[in-house]
Amino acid sequence: MTEDAVYDRQNFGNSVGFGRRPALLIVDFQVGFADPNVFGGGNVQDAVSATRPLLEGMREIGAPIAYTRAVFDANAEDGGTFAMKVPGLYQLADDAPISQIVPELAPVEGDLVLRKIGPSAFFSTPLMSWLAKRSVDTLIVTGATTSGCVRASVIDSCSYALRTVVAADCCGDRAIEPHEANLFDMGQKYADLMSGAEALAKARAAVAANAP
Amino acid sequence: MTEDAVYDRQNFGNSVGFGRRPALLIVDFQVGFADPNVFGGGNVQDAVSATRPLLEGMREIGAPIAYTRAVFDANAEDGGTFAMKVPGLYQLADDAPISQIVPELAPVEGDLVLRKIGPSAFFSTPLMSWLAKRSVDTLIVTGATTSGCVRASVIDSCSYALRTVVAADCCGDRAIEPHEANLFDMGQKYADLMSGAEALAKARAAVAANAP
Amino acid sequence: MTEDAVYDRQNFGNSVGFGRRPALLIVDFQVGFADPNVFGGGNVQDAVSATRPLLEGMREIGAPIAYTRAVFDANAEDGGTFAMKVPGLYQLADDAPISQIVPELAPVEGDLVLRKIGPSAFFSTPLMSWLAKRSVDTLIVTGATTSGCVRASVIDSCSYALRTVVAADCCGDRAIEPHEANLFDMGQKYADLMSGAEALAKARAAVAANAP
Amino acid sequence: MTEDAVYDRQNFGNSVGFGRRPALLIVDFQVGFADPNVFGGGNVQDAVSATRPLLEGMREIGAPIAYTRAVFDANAEDGGTFAMKVPGLYQLADDAPISQIVPELAPVEGDLVLRKIGPSAFFSTPLMSWLAKRSVDTLIVTGATTSGCVRASVIDSCSYALRTVVAADCCGDRAIEPHEANLFDMGQKYADLMSGAEALAKARAAVAANAP
Repeated sequence: MTEDAVYDRQNFGNSVGFGRRPALLIVDFQVGFADPNVFGGGNVQDAVSATRPLLEGMREIGAPIAYTRAVFDANAEDGGTFAMKVPGLYQLADDAPISQIVPELAPVEGDLVLRKIGPSAFFSTPLMSWLAKRSVDTLIVTGATTSGCVRASVIDSCSYALRTVVAADCCGDRAIEPHEANLFDMGQKYADLMSGAEALAKARAAVAANAP
Repeated sequence: MTEDAVYDRQNFGNSVGFGRRPALLIVDFQVGFADPNVFGGGNVQDAVSATRPLLEGMREIGAPIAYTRAVFDANAEDGGTFAMKVPGLYQLADDAPISQIVPELAPVEGDLVLRKIGPSAFFSTPLMSWLAKRSVDTLIVTGATTSGCVRASVIDSCSYALRTVVAADCCGDRAIEPHEANLFDMGQKYADLMSGAEALAKARAAVAANAP
Repeated sequence: MTEDAVYDRQNFGNSVGFGRRPALLIVDFQVGFADPNVFGGGNVQDAVSATRPLLEGMREIGAPIAYTRAVFDANAEDGGTFAMKVPGLYQLADDAPISQIVPELAPVEGDLVLRKIGPSAFFSTPLMSWLAKRSVDTLIVTGATTSGCVRASVIDSCSYALRTVVAADCCGDRAIEPHEANLFDMGQKYADLMSGAEALAKARAAVAANAP
Repeated sequence: MTEDAVYDRQNFGNSVGFGRRPALLIVDFQVGFADPNVFGGGNVQDAVSATRPLLEGMREIGAPIAYTRAVFDANAEDGGTFAMKVPGLYQLADDAPISQIVPELAPVEGDLVLRKIGPSAFFSTPLMSWLAKRSVDTLIVTGATTSGCVRASVIDSCSYALRTVVAADCCGDRAIEPHEANLFDMGQKYADLMSGAEALAKARAAVAANAP
């Protein structure tokens, strides 16, 4: 791509590397975001499948695991502009089947499961507090959609100075061009891109090297 | 594009419309972001030029005007992950010539000029407080770069439930593909896209209709 | 008090007055905060009773009503330092009877009910977005405890530039000295103090004067 | 005090203890807050003097040091409700002599010096990002005033799950009753209270025990 030359010349896209305390964030892998008839399609189901071994590995090494669920209350009209652009978000009631985490990636006791009404996992949630309490310095991000809530969460993770890793094959989107375009932006400016397998290997090494 | 069909079917891209109290946000139109040898290039200079009549018109109708400047302190190392990905950001010292707002769009007394260290104009700044104090409900966004700080600011504007308008010809980027890809994402999910001229006409009408 | 002279001389304690769009915030009036055997005592039950006519009046004039509930997940250990200082907070599970809003002030459809893990109603919640969407410029605050979550919420309301009113008889605390000391601080620095009846009268007048 | 019995019975006031990576926050020790003719008086000057050995000790052990300055722009009217309650805050222009850090505690290269417009050091500033980047888990807080910006900063530090220590003799206020009342509240709910000397000893021990 021609833009690569510009970004290289201006010295974008350096690596942030891994810190000592990695955690895993799983953004909006809810039933409705894996279903092409609701908000899914594209490579979302593949990303769910690719996240499973990453999740299992992160559990094995005792890393903190946080999930978000996009959940709206149509009566209180708690959605912002996001819900004006995409009114179908109000289908995501707290107890609706499409709002639940996909069964393949079901949370277990001790995981954090957050409700959110904006694109970012950090906006209007206690995610940063929960990570800070655990001294997390490196956040591996997976979820849906790459061009929506993953991108927004990665920007905030970067702004909070967390070393941020996008597990690229573990992020999915309803259409491939926005998926690719957003991976490009995130890799140039906010996060390191790698596969879920590579992220897990690095997390495993970081935890082993920093065991008390 | 094939993705359009998916977004249409899932009912993305609805209009948010204008409210009663518009304001203008000018993101990072600093000398260094208009200079191809620093962080500029592409259509950034065209976007600066297109912003001038919008800025003048917004001043005429008495709308609040806010600017951001990306400013870093290399000694305090106040940049987050963003500055690890793009170390050149530390060139943007508070008093460096490349950190100043471009002369064509110089702020005047009464404008708000914010320093920021993250991509978003809202993150770690008092922008939302300043807008809330003025009962702003509609934010017209211009600046650089479309795929970076404009996009990040638009997400937060949307999350704060402001009606958000991206003045597309008043946003610029160092490379055109990311510019276009990010306009697509923002128009589908977070904001209404229009020209600066159209945004000004709507702002003018909103202010006239809601004069005390 | 001797401090009054200092505060007067330095010109603290000016009035912020009412804006055009008032809303009501009810902080943590949960069963456990009204029960002296859990987190209650002092004048909390009186404050609950005094809030009832204010709530009914605000409903009559169609003002937005927001509640917070302090809710913790002991398994995810989602409490911050607050829960280290006060470990009993983990009793406040989402479905525990002591975590529910007191029956006298039960929310109705259309009200916003937020979960929170910190002292402030704004921290890590979408409260500001919900208020901004409704163009609220004046926030009347009631709840428990005056020296805890009311005070913290009032600081953030002030920081977001909302005109903030503390309905003093509608705020309660487990002990009277901290209640009084915090009313003093809030009245000097962050908010106007008045009775719930006076706040309602002013809200009624503001809504009548600004009807579309 | 009678309230002590209630707080004891409800199990408030537990210790949070020290973590591994302490930092020092110095809130608004500006010339104008040490001057009884501006915003000072009471025990503020004593608190400045007591902070000096703490600051020197924290520098010796290489701990991160952050300062805040309350700074307002009268032309942009960037103050929120705080500046409506206390209009004199607009005297604190960025370049005014009363806005500068007191000479006894002058920052050095590498320290972070933040401007803020609200009571809290965290609100609308990048403080949390800067601390997170350094893996700080324990924040020692000093400054002025105890009942104002110190209290507000301590609440947010607690909400972000930092172990928070109030160096009581290093915090000052224009009047003593609010100083004492706010120390009581903070010690019960948000932070551990100790002297600056004790905080430094614990910080020194924490850094020694966790040297790489």
